[in-house]
Amino acid sequence: MSEKNGSGIPESTIERLPQYLRCLIELQALGVPLVKSERLAALCGTNAAQVRKDFSYLGELGTRGIGYEVAALVEHISQILGVKERRKAAIVGYGKLGAALHGYPGFPERGFEVVALFDVDPAKVGQVFDGLAVHHLDEAPKVLRELGVEIAILATPPHAAQLAADAVVEGGVKAILNLAPTRLVVPDDVNVRQVCLSTDLQILSFRLAQQEGAR
Amino acid sequence: MSEKNGSGIPESTIERLPQYLRCLIELQALGVPLVKSERLAALCGTNAAQVRKDFSYLGELGTRGIGYEVAALVEHISQILGVKERRKAAIVGYGKLGAALHGYPGFPERGFEVVALFDVDPAKVGQVFDGLAVHHLDEAPKVLRELGVEIAILATPPHAAQLAADAVVEGGVKAILNLAPTRLVVPDDVNVRQVCLSTDLQILSFRLAQQEGAR
Repeated sequence: MSEKNGSGIPESTIERLPQYLRCLIELQALGVPLVKSERLAALCGTNAAQVRKDFSYLGELGTRGIGYEVAALVEHISQILGVKERRKAAIVGYGKLGAALHGYPGFPERGFEVVALFDVDPAKVGQVFDGLAVHHLDEAPKVLRELGVEIAILATPPHAAQLAADAVVEGGVKAILNLAPTRLVVPDDVNVRQVCLSTDLQILSFRLAQQEGAR
Repeated sequence: MSEKNGSGIPESTIERLPQYLRCLIELQALGVPLVKSERLAALCGTNAAQVRKDFSYLGELGTRGIGYEVAALVEHISQILGVKERRKAAIVGYGKLGAALHGYPGFPERGFEVVALFDVDPAKVGQVFDGLAVHHLDEAPKVLRELGVEIAILATPPHAAQLAADAVVEGGVKAILNLAPTRLVVPDDVNVRQVCLSTDLQILSFRLAQQEGAR
């Protein structure tokens, strides 16, 4: 939740960069060479002033009255986000959610390759799904290092998430996307992003409650 | 992304309330009557000053040197979030991800009940999963109104998300949790929360790139 990240780019801008990148890649695919802040803002669901402010942190990228060069922006944002090369990911917990994530087309499209699967269920360990064998979690430290996995996606039950985190940290993983509703304890140099769908629903519920109150 | 929500409570505080609520409910289950800001902060992964600041927006809830009454906080935050009564939700798109969400224990625990399933695949429509029949999306406007569904969780492929959103909005739904990587166009009084796991992975990738640069 810190606003400092050492790059000189505010956290709130970083959070918007993936969305900009997605829209810019779409424009690039359509053969659009230049884009004005107004158009990009409309595509990304923000406003032109926000786009200009966010891009001001990235250096001199646009020309007044002409717009931004799409290809240069794609290149530059990809570099900032560190997604120019594919990064290897592993899925830990191969239940319904883990299996759904394994088939998620957004991961390869955005530069992430799932290269390993882990579970503790003897019925799943050793089985092959879409060309990948499920390893036992005990093997994670060894397998993750051998494969050079950088990111672990945890889709375990809540009580198993910390054990899974410990195993992937031992395997050299420095980035965890945690879909279990469990707060993880990890070393300072490991980055965790917590996805909590119940929290998202509660925030939606707050907005519904406000609308009801306003009626 | 607006910071204004009409409640007088900053958006950033609203975003943290679900996490506080979860920790407070755990403390309540353990029979803890009072909690100091330091302890609650440690449980929620924030700091005591942040807890005190966030709670200052909720009114006079704590006593200096003694702490906050756990039960009163649970009651109060539940009311603000509008989760005192169960809210009915529907899942649209019953593929692997939709099925995984249907079994997600966090939803009922946090006050949300999945009461309807929708898909367009003839092989799924009419089938029953965990006691719920899958309806065709065409029936959504009628079924959602009959059941009083307030929240729709979209787990469709990207190209089908807007069609799904249109159907649930026609059914009176005012809150959408969208797991498809598609920006939805909805009326102003419909709240959308976008879950984008690829974006989360890209933000993790940014942190990895920074660590690599710092080495």
